Amino acid sequence: MNAEIRTDTTLPTITEVRLTPILIADPPLLNLSGVHQPYTPRLIVEVEIEGGIVGLGETYGDTVYFERAKALAPELVGQSVGAVNTIGGIGQEASTLLEAQPAASGLRGALTTDKVRLSVLSAFEVAALDALGQQLGVPVHALLGGKVRDHVEYSGYLFYKWAEHPVEDALGDDWGAALDPDGVVRQARKFFEYGGFRSFKLKGGVLPPDEEIAAIRALADEFPGMPLRLDPNGGWTLRTALHVAQELTGVVEYLEDPTATVADMAEVHRRTGIPLATNMIVTALNEVRPAFDADAVQIVLSDHHYWGGLFATRDLAAVCRAYGRGLSMHSNTHLGISLAAMTHVAATVPDLEYACDSHYPWQREEVITTPITFTDGAVTVSDAPGLGVTLDRDAVARLHERWNAMPELRDRDDIAAMRRAKPGFEDPGIPKY
Amino acid sequence: MNAEIRTDTTLPTITEVRLTPILIADPPLLNLSGVHQPYTPRLIVEVEIEGGIVGLGETYGDTVYFERAKALAPELVGQSVGAVNTIGGIGQEASTLLEAQPAASGLRGALTTDKVRLSVLSAFEVAALDALGQQLGVPVHALLGGKVRDHVEYSGYLFYKWAEHPVEDALGDDWGAALDPDGVVRQARKFFEYGGFRSFKLKGGVLPPDEEIAAIRALADEFPGMPLRLDPNGGWTLRTALHVAQELTGVVEYLEDPTATVADMAEVHRRTGIPLATNMIVTALNEVRPAFDADAVQIVLSDHHYWGGLFATRDLAAVCRAYGRGLSMHSNTHLGISLAAMTHVAATVPDLEYACDSHYPWQREEVITTPITFTDGAVTVSDAPGLGVTLDRDAVARLHERWNAMPELRDRDDIAAMRRAKPGFEDPGIPKY
Repeated sequence: MNAEIRTDTTLPTITEVRLTPILIADPPLLNLSGVHQPYTPRLIVEVEIEGGIVGLGETYGDTVYFERAKALAPELVGQSVGAVNTIGGIGQEASTLLEAQPAASGLRGALTTDKVRLSVLSAFEVAALDALGQQLGVPVHALLGGKVRDHVEYSGYLFYKWAEHPVEDALGDDWGAALDPDGVVRQARKFFEYGGFRSFKLKGGVLPPDEEIAAIRALADEFPGMPLRLDPNGGWTLRTALHVAQELTGVVEYLEDPTATVADMAEVHRRTGIPLATNMIVTALNEVRPAFDADAVQIVLSDHHYWGGLFATRDLAAVCRAYGRGLSMHSNTHLGISLAAMTHVAATVPDLEYACDSHYPWQREEVITTPITFTDGAVTVSDAPGLGVTLDRDAVARLHERWNAMPELRDRDDIAAMRRAKPGFEDPGIPKY
Repeated sequence: MNAEIRTDTTLPTITEVRLTPILIADPPLLNLSGVHQPYTPRLIVEVEIEGGIVGLGETYGDTVYFERAKALAPELVGQSVGAVNTIGGIGQEASTLLEAQPAASGLRGALTTDKVRLSVLSAFEVAALDALGQQLGVPVHALLGGKVRDHVEYSGYLFYKWAEHPVEDALGDDWGAALDPDGVVRQARKFFEYGGFRSFKLKGGVLPPDEEIAAIRALADEFPGMPLRLDPNGGWTLRTALHVAQELTGVVEYLEDPTATVADMAEVHRRTGIPLATNMIVTALNEVRPAFDADAVQIVLSDHHYWGGLFATRDLAAVCRAYGRGLSMHSNTHLGISLAAMTHVAATVPDLEYACDSHYPWQREEVITTPITFTDGAVTVSDAPGLGVTLDRDAVARLHERWNAMPELRDRDDIAAMRRAKPGFEDPGIPKY
């Protein structure tokens, strides 16, 4: 009665892992610690399997990640492309604090060897899933239990920014400056025109808090009823955070990382009731329980790079579900491979109640042949095999050439970038305000 | 450079869901509330997809499950077989306590409409995964991220039992009686010969606790160093549980559900330090947090029937991982379809540290053509397409015929079964000792 069934279920093995560090243009976006470099590192991962199919992954490209990726990649070779669950165990060892903390790492809490390892493995896992999906003729979401929605919503990710980088050789952008409420609203309008976003997040911690409160109020006036968020990357004192929370309760959907510690986050929530999101105090499994037990976090901003891949992101979603926490997604500067991966996994999580974050609209360069577009603030979930993206090898080669040519930018350092614009600039540290 | 990629990734839709209630022979196994019926109900689920492939699932067969399955099955028809994540949402509504609590339901806490729904959906999900695996030519574990082990260990599941059912028409067994320490040790030796089990669990709550302590001590003498467990199904008072915990600390690997409430479980652990497992106070997502917060549970015995399927079981594993709890697997009377499903999901969970439970060795009847065997206490993970089992349609027809012929046994009732042997027997309730 059954149809004819294949009996050979052996999946192809991984024959090669190719790693290509690149530098991609990034606008002069401001944050707590400084300004984005004109070019920022990413690492492109290609996993090739028997038969020639190539799967794609993307992760942080700073030296510490690239070096770890080079060390771990050989362990993938010879493994079945279907052995996705074994990837998380590659290179497992006691985690230690990185001796030299990369300057941009404050944005994801203290960086440990295990966080680096998981960020590398996330790209390996995504590439393996892309290859496996192509091999089986199914989209990546089907390898995660299948999509529960056809569109994944993203928020418009607003930044204070300069009109241009104050250095030569930087790629320009046409977003203009945004340094006050009017500028932020102008940027939001452009975002709305660009992708129809239905919620906005403002990267804060840049200006004195009352100026950022004014910017959020201006957005609320311009886009009544639209969910708004403010994220100072843990840059406020408890006192400042309480002040902002009181001012913006009922105005923002949530505050993101207003302070940098579990205790202070818990205190802000306890005293104001405002929902708090984080991608700083909960960025690894061992950080979940202390933050939940203290009720310091109501929404976890997952990041498949941080957590070690798409299955790990689903795992985090399950933990949030069991503990009545919301889930959304964090983003750092990334390209279309990662946006595709985020969209596939987000499509499979039934209780994803918040629009995800993505820096993607800020990127003017791509490594896939067809850039991903936003409609009504959402990305359509691809049903093509694998991730549904194709590598633009010429673009990768060109961006790798830049990486070769600019060794001084291979480690993202927003403080150094600011110092190039403002000699004598010192890292404000946190709390900043 | 890529190999040829399929562009049509459309997966077949489900065309039919067939439900067949059956009655299977069950030995006279004793527990807290009575004795297993000579025949116990199970429900066999067949999910047929476009092209004719049929996937298999199995769940509880009592009337309340069968009726719910009949109501929900039509909602599966027309869905993509790959839309596994949508299955959990079928029939979702406010959960209520079942008005008539089935007599055997005390063994899984209070039964609610949502627990029934999830137990039904678990069989739908397993059947969909079986069909999808066959369609794609991959084993079910590959649809869950792939196996991390080739063998899944099970414990030998010992029961106090009579030599035979005290009623006519019962199928005999050759395990003999076990009503004292000698009988239990004899049974364990037979289990060891049968499947090489490397750990044993004794279903307790049957005899006065000191007799069960003596049985555990006899097992420890006979099998030195082997992990042992005792499970009275929540049947002890706090005082009794503390007594047993003190007697058996260092002798058992864990106690399972010594008492029936979160508060008492927490107290037993707090005062004795003995690890506690449960499949009674944590059987649904909303029960996780109270039990973990109270530190009432150190090991959760998952059951894919309870939790709604294999993805939900992986989700529970993630929650346990985040909260530093162990995971193992619970079992009730089941056949090879469910054992195959348990084995596939267990093979994919990296941190499964305890041998799983299975009643399977007690079943003399099967609905699959090749019964599953245990070697060194473990089941080899199948790499055949789907679950890797084939339905024996003649057997199903025969067992369904029995279901037709014995309406009085369609709802498992261990108390009524005991009353048939001992007229006037009353449900002891809990705590029993």
